[in-house]
Amino acid sequence: MNKAELFQQIRKKESFLCVGLDTDIQKIPRNLLDTSDAIFAFNKEIIDATHDLAVAYKPNLAFYESMGVNGWNSLEKTVNYIRYKYPEIFIIADAKRGDIGNTSALYARAFFDTMDFDAVTVAPYMGEDSVKPFFTYVGKWVILLALTSNKGADDFQYVEEGGEKLFEKVIKKSQEWSNEDNMMYVVGATRAEMLSDIRKIAPNHFLLVPGVGAQGGSLAEVARYGMNSECGLLVNSSRQIIYASTGDDFAKKAREAALEVQKEMAELLKKYLK
Amino acid sequence: MNKAELFQQIRKKESFLCVGLDTDIQKIPRNLLDTSDAIFAFNKEIIDATHDLAVAYKPNLAFYESMGVNGWNSLEKTVNYIRYKYPEIFIIADAKRGDIGNTSALYARAFFDTMDFDAVTVAPYMGEDSVKPFFTYVGKWVILLALTSNKGADDFQYVEEGGEKLFEKVIKKSQEWSNEDNMMYVVGATRAEMLSDIRKIAPNHFLLVPGVGAQGGSLAEVARYGMNSECGLLVNSSRQIIYASTGDDFAKKAREAALEVQKEMAELLKKYLK
Repeated sequence: MNKAELFQQIRKKESFLCVGLDTDIQKIPRNLLDTSDAIFAFNKEIIDATHDLAVAYKPNLAFYESMGVNGWNSLEKTVNYIRYKYPEIFIIADAKRGDIGNTSALYARAFFDTMDFDAVTVAPYMGEDSVKPFFTYVGKWVILLALTSNKGADDFQYVEEGGEKLFEKVIKKSQEWSNEDNMMYVVGATRAEMLSDIRKIAPNHFLLVPGVGAQGGSLAEVARYGMNSECGLLVNSSRQIIYASTGDDFAKKAREAALEVQKEMAELLKKYLK
Repeated sequence: MNKAELFQQIRKKESFLCVGLDTDIQKIPRNLLDTSDAIFAFNKEIIDATHDLAVAYKPNLAFYESMGVNGWNSLEKTVNYIRYKYPEIFIIADAKRGDIGNTSALYARAFFDTMDFDAVTVAPYMGEDSVKPFFTYVGKWVILLALTSNKGADDFQYVEEGGEKLFEKVIKKSQEWSNEDNMMYVVGATRAEMLSDIRKIAPNHFLLVPGVGAQGGSLAEVARYGMNSECGLLVNSSRQIIYASTGDDFAKKAREAALEVQKEMAELLKKYLK
């Protein structure tokens, strides 16, 4: 999916919502545990209930890997299901991978070829050759970690050399490797006001913003500081939506939670997009 | 496995060799492709041929993930095989993971509980809470990326604040989170002389050194600058050993290549350990 197509979906659905499929076997309704693949069964119902309100889904790989081969199988089925049933949806592998060049090429194959994700999150620590192999797939995206939303972000991401913080250097340096047509950045919403600084060095890139909702970021602030003329935002919500209810009505309640976010997003798009 | 046990294995085998199981379906002998699980069949023969010469094996996850569910299955079988047949071997998941705290806890479960690895490589970009969950497993290890051996290492790892480079800050800061009893560092061998600087800030930690062999680092230099009184080194070799021959004699040739390295290591241990 290219940038214009993504923006078209955002306008059509009046939404820039990404639903995080952080599916935890210990948190899904008990009655699903009788099915042969409870994780996939849960994801399928969540997807069917929210597909018209979200432009993206983002499974976090850790949730699937923690279940070994079975989890990896549930993940593949989930991606295939979205791709087949709702081909207009943007699918993000939240994998935070990154290795030497030859090895990153294999991660790219895993997520873009063996599985049909549209994007993968990548950690920048190992630099250019760890990121570039992902760009060889046409229509696929890298979402590079810049400023994350966790407490540990303070440890290294603010290291400053010559007036430039590490996360700023990541954003600037990576623009020598590719551009806004196949690269986005992860920017944590716990620091919404910093989005305006980031927009100075990445005015046209999409930003993937985690941490709205359960982690307490404000959607209105994110839109105020981060939205550009093509929206330029994907805002993720996981727990607030997929665990809106722990009972058998989980899909219905997930839809209600997603609808609430989508309505606010529709207002924000009206306000900031001419 | 604790540090004393690892050192005991090093003394017993007169080796600090880690064999990288970077098994690529396109590089293994054709006749293995007829077996139901060619990757595992290859790994099994390599392991049987080298287990007495190596103290550690290190599958890189990308090679397995690129093959999807089947690859993940081959990986689990490989780990189980080593654990059952050669329980004294240290097994490293070269996964370079790292995510927010709750999510890193699931990666820890994946590698230390669902699978029985001894250690996992972790990327430091997201800081303390992305690393700490791995320490909750007794006898298990984090191997934190500090200075990597690829070209892209130059992009961010040398960013300098107050006279301290980022990779040095990673080493110092992480010592507030844990110690040499369950944490090692990845230090690339293409910069062997830098090992003596690293030894000033991490005198007692084990260092995992990739890039000796095919990537051109010198084992003698690594030992000279990096060895401490408990050896403190695991030196990895992948392609040079596992692809020593592309024919049906691959296991025999892998043993010969490993034996050559082990002999040099025995000499170096004699030279530097009193």
